[in-house]
Amino acid sequence: MQFTAQEIAFLLNGTVEGDPLVPVNQLAKIEEAGAGALSFLANPKYEQYLYSTNASIVIVNNDLVLAEPVKATLIRVENAYSAFSVLLEKYNTIKLNKSGIEQPCFIHPSAQIGQNVYVGAFAYIGPGVKLGDNSKVYPNTYIADNVIIGKNSTLFSGVKVYFDCVIGDNVIIHSGAIIGSDGFGFAPSADGTYQKISQIGNVILEDNVEVGSNTTIDRATMGSTIIRKGVKLDNQVQVAHNVEIGENTVVAAQTGISGSAKIGESVILGGQVGVVGHISIAKGSQVQGQSGIGRTITEENKKWAGSPAVPYSNNMRSQVVIQRLPELEKRIEELEKIIAELRKDSVH
Amino acid sequence: MQFTAQEIAFLLNGTVEGDPLVPVNQLAKIEEAGAGALSFLANPKYEQYLYSTNASIVIVNNDLVLAEPVKATLIRVENAYSAFSVLLEKYNTIKLNKSGIEQPCFIHPSAQIGQNVYVGAFAYIGPGVKLGDNSKVYPNTYIADNVIIGKNSTLFSGVKVYFDCVIGDNVIIHSGAIIGSDGFGFAPSADGTYQKISQIGNVILEDNVEVGSNTTIDRATMGSTIIRKGVKLDNQVQVAHNVEIGENTVVAAQTGISGSAKIGESVILGGQVGVVGHISIAKGSQVQGQSGIGRTITEENKKWAGSPAVPYSNNMRSQVVIQRLPELEKRIEELEKIIAELRKDSVH
Amino acid sequence: MQFTAQEIAFLLNGTVEGDPLVPVNQLAKIEEAGAGALSFLANPKYEQYLYSTNASIVIVNNDLVLAEPVKATLIRVENAYSAFSVLLEKYNTIKLNKSGIEQPCFIHPSAQIGQNVYVGAFAYIGPGVKLGDNSKVYPNTYIADNVIIGKNSTLFSGVKVYFDCVIGDNVIIHSGAIIGSDGFGFAPSADGTYQKISQIGNVILEDNVEVGSNTTIDRATMGSTIIRKGVKLDNQVQVAHNVEIGENTVVAAQTGISGSAKIGESVILGGQVGVVGHISIAKGSQVQGQSGIGRTITEENKKWAGSPAVPYSNNMRSQVVIQRLPELEKRIEELEKIIAELRKDSVH
Repeated sequence: MQFTAQEIAFLLNGTVEGDPLVPVNQLAKIEEAGAGALSFLANPKYEQYLYSTNASIVIVNNDLVLAEPVKATLIRVENAYSAFSVLLEKYNTIKLNKSGIEQPCFIHPSAQIGQNVYVGAFAYIGPGVKLGDNSKVYPNTYIADNVIIGKNSTLFSGVKVYFDCVIGDNVIIHSGAIIGSDGFGFAPSADGTYQKISQIGNVILEDNVEVGSNTTIDRATMGSTIIRKGVKLDNQVQVAHNVEIGENTVVAAQTGISGSAKIGESVILGGQVGVVGHISIAKGSQVQGQSGIGRTITEENKKWAGSPAVPYSNNMRSQVVIQRLPELEKRIEELEKIIAELRKDSVH
Repeated sequence: MQFTAQEIAFLLNGTVEGDPLVPVNQLAKIEEAGAGALSFLANPKYEQYLYSTNASIVIVNNDLVLAEPVKATLIRVENAYSAFSVLLEKYNTIKLNKSGIEQPCFIHPSAQIGQNVYVGAFAYIGPGVKLGDNSKVYPNTYIADNVIIGKNSTLFSGVKVYFDCVIGDNVIIHSGAIIGSDGFGFAPSADGTYQKISQIGNVILEDNVEVGSNTTIDRATMGSTIIRKGVKLDNQVQVAHNVEIGENTVVAAQTGISGSAKIGESVILGGQVGVVGHISIAKGSQVQGQSGIGRTITEENKKWAGSPAVPYSNNMRSQVVIQRLPELEKRIEELEKIIAELRKDSVH
Repeated sequence: MQFTAQEIAFLLNGTVEGDPLVPVNQLAKIEEAGAGALSFLANPKYEQYLYSTNASIVIVNNDLVLAEPVKATLIRVENAYSAFSVLLEKYNTIKLNKSGIEQPCFIHPSAQIGQNVYVGAFAYIGPGVKLGDNSKVYPNTYIADNVIIGKNSTLFSGVKVYFDCVIGDNVIIHSGAIIGSDGFGFAPSADGTYQKISQIGNVILEDNVEVGSNTTIDRATMGSTIIRKGVKLDNQVQVAHNVEIGENTVVAAQTGISGSAKIGESVILGGQVGVVGHISIAKGSQVQGQSGIGRTITEENKKWAGSPAVPYSNNMRSQVVIQRLPELEKRIEELEKIIAELRKDSVH
């Protein structure tokens, strides 16, 4: 794909300053851009780069006053940052603009396939599946029996969705994510072996959820594991059976949430956090990376840290003293010696 | 699938109280059940739900005495809980009752395929593979050269098994699990680069093992990485080369076990635990989530916690004091001041 | 594959002591080897096993003097350890010696496929892809649009590479690894929802990189996430967008590196380590497993431990005192009592 300054200015409702026919075929940061790249300058802090950049085109604000001559062709717009965001999104839309049914793929005759979908080669769409309009199922992806997928959703290559799960509209699931595998439920027997407890529930991903690559979300034992609207899960997150995650909550990579935990809305869990089972975390809570949440949090909008987690500032203070522990121990020894002497004195 | 109260009562050797022809098509918890659902009441604590539930059928104990009228049709049985478990299992068996060879799939002519197996579309069964009777290989699953798989085992979609690995009977492997990838072995060279050490061993999963989704189990450098009978591994567990895990041990999600570690039988490792290499953990040990096991544990049946892990109760006590550290530091300062004064006094 | 002692001795430039025609078909450790196995003895510590082993052939050093009679056929060489390594590598080369194009696979007409490659069944090679000579793409692997892969590289079954990524020569990527999924970037809106920030960069894996199974490496927001020459990543490692990892750095399993972090060359990160975003770690740093790196490390070649990480020996000292905290608290209480009494005395 190649565009001229003129074409881009037209798209952004901007004005060209320089060569209107200079072509670009990629987007780049102003400090890294080479010939053929389009960049932008929004933050005055980076203005220096404008005069040295090798970018062919730079989008700038209307009110920018040049301090030096510029090699690049400029496109002046009302707001350079948001104009560039528009281009980013358009660029990505074009990149991901797959459609049609590639062969060979497997679509069960009983599946209902919407309009304008993409089904990649070696994708598997099982009996009774409903795939909504404009949704994309990339190659090597597996959709088991009776799964329902809404509109405008994208399942990248290698996603696996077990039977009966429900996926909303505008959902993005990255490669290798597993939706609806069995919850980890076993009943111990007298002889030390474990009997599997059948996991017959499902997983529901509501609208606008994004699931990172290789994240795993287990089906409920009964009922549903529920990921509410707008939740964003990073890569390699583990969500156990019967968990519920509230709207617009964000979970960073490698965090694990144990069975039946309830995470409130607008919560932020850092990376590598562990949450034990059957507890709840209040709305707006923020949990630092590597923390362990071992009990229910009822106060909203607080920060937590440590394993076991305590209020963030308490953790900070304790961590500081931990570094001084060897010294503190010596000070105690010193005090003990002095006191032993004082006592001797006072006895005499 | 739809069943009447009469049919279910017959199956469970129970008696119907109400409409014998009322149909159900799903199982649900009594407090969540709607019309068309079958539920059960075993724990008297939940008896209140029996009078308000919308379930069409509820399985109850023979000896239950109704305190109020009930809308639902009842099925009375000896033991409502175990009757319901029987239904759960039957339900799941029907759900997972795949068989036959779907096309296109790849089965090497030299592979030996048992009776009544399922091989899904886009599954790959390499040269020399043996697949036992009643085993299931779901779509997009890869079984490399000379792998042996026993009877009644299920490999869900997207499982990858490297060459020469051995999988027993009644094994369940969930989507995205990788069995037999190379151990992480490299020899440092003088120039700072690393030379790969060939990993020519394999992985053995004994009977009745269950492996969670996206779990990884590396092949041994030489010999075998061994997962003994009845071991249950949750999702995203990492098992390094030459590890051995004893019978009926349970490992929760995101735990990592380093090379050549030996985990005893009937051990329970919580989630996100780390185990260093070349150590052993005694039979019956229980390790709290997020702990780090840094040395061999020889005493059996003890609980451990912390990173580095110490006996569970010691860790609990230390954690409590850690919260008071800033206060303790102040108390030491206070003592130092007082003593400084006392010394001044005693000098005078 | 079966070889005689004579054939192996010829290959290793060694001399046979015993039956030159005895056949072997596997490699094994001397203490575990059975009939038909070839083993080696390099470390004198294990010499006892030479006299009891069931191995058919044992490779030994030229200068070994036998203390007892030996059942096995011996092959004497200059250096038994390196001779065995040569065999290991040859064995593995044979095991992994796949080539040709298996059907059905998907190769877009615009893709450029080198000489002597392997493309397994159900592999997907998208538009504009370049696959270098002698590289292997195993079954069920997905290579998206315009990806470039060098020579002698191996992508095992189920690897997924998103569009525009670049993979060098002699790279090994294990099953289930995801290269180039979207970075975790979202902008919060006033109504509490998050807007996705388009991720238009790519991932570059330089020559001789090895990536473990189910590891995830996100594409850059703009520019590249870069894994430099000779880096070795273990299983289930998470590398976020715009990270850069320096040459010959080794990262153990389940470690997570947050966005825009820069890891220097020849660094060693243990397992389950967390690294926060936008920091850098100096060349030669070594970080203990389960540590959390929360700030930039500028000193080279130091050891770090703890979460938050501090110099390794400081952490060791603090950890020791943490175990004594309950006792220290009692000692402080004791001191307080004594001092209270002393003060009473001194007041009188």
